[in-house]
Amino acid sequence: MHVAATPEPAPCEPRWLDDEQEAAWRAFASMTVKLRWALECQLQRDAGLSFIEYYALARLSENQDNTMRMSELAEVTDASLSRLSHLIKRLEVRGLVRREPDPADGRYTNAIMTDAGLRLLVASAPAHVAEVRELVIDPLTQTQLRQLRLASERILQRIAAGDCRPPGPSSS
Amino acid sequence: MHVAATPEPAPCEPRWLDDEQEAAWRAFASMTVKLRWALECQLQRDAGLSFIEYYALARLSENQDNTMRMSELAEVTDASLSRLSHLIKRLEVRGLVRREPDPADGRYTNAIMTDAGLRLLVASAPAHVAEVRELVIDPLTQTQLRQLRLASERILQRIAAGDCRPPGPSSS
Repeated sequence: MHVAATPEPAPCEPRWLDDEQEAAWRAFASMTVKLRWALECQLQRDAGLSFIEYYALARLSENQDNTMRMSELAEVTDASLSRLSHLIKRLEVRGLVRREPDPADGRYTNAIMTDAGLRLLVASAPAHVAEVRELVIDPLTQTQLRQLRLASERILQRIAAGDCRPPGPSSS
Repeated sequence: MHVAATPEPAPCEPRWLDDEQEAAWRAFASMTVKLRWALECQLQRDAGLSFIEYYALARLSENQDNTMRMSELAEVTDASLSRLSHLIKRLEVRGLVRREPDPADGRYTNAIMTDAGLRLLVASAPAHVAEVRELVIDPLTQTQLRQLRLASERILQRIAAGDCRPPGPSSS
């Protein structure tokens, strides 16, 4: 049996955060919560879209024919397929998106942004980009922004290694 | 009228993000979304609490008599008062919190964590802190964590200067 030279904490003893870690976690957690509602608020006011609705349209606009398989769109919008289905249904009622079976493989469903969807996205983008600049890009130096990206990528790697899936429409 | 030596872009031309800014924004936005559901998932699984329910209990535990005015609790949990009221009602049904008029000023309502609430919080804290460590604290160096805190504080300052309020219970 290995005996360490200096005693380690018992394995059942939680490793609490020290004061500096606690302060960093509080600032960071508060920022992520408040940033999300600031952007939700801006998008609702200026575009009548939720954050995830806006980014679903934005990701569709980057694809050929403004079309994407629902499963891929769920992936790139960080949504579960069931949550995305509800969301796309709402956008369909508003005439911004339609759904069709994938002509290449009928087991899949495609989401296709309509002309009306594209017009709304194009009209909404300037105000949203201005808000992202105002809140996130402009307050940071180029170096700070690079560090933020690096930290984000490291955290994303850890999340990917875990076993949690995105929540469904009613966070079940 | 002031005439700049080099022409500035017309005021109506949006300042789009450059490639590096766009990549940083995408990584950062994706991280904030995925981190939130990873933590929601961990808390639901290990404690039967949502993220905001856990932090409402945690903030109550830091106050004398585990008591706080609802309006202050809304402030420190980054929730609107109406959202917090719904949430505290749910915790009350489970016997984790109760509400009473503030004895010092009956116009205010206090939220008071019960012994059962404190027991659940104490039982839940080690697994949650371990997850926060695993996903956010441990993948970053001490310097990177400091930078993340600084970036968070700068973004929070910008958000505070804006005019958006936290959304209500149904994100209305």
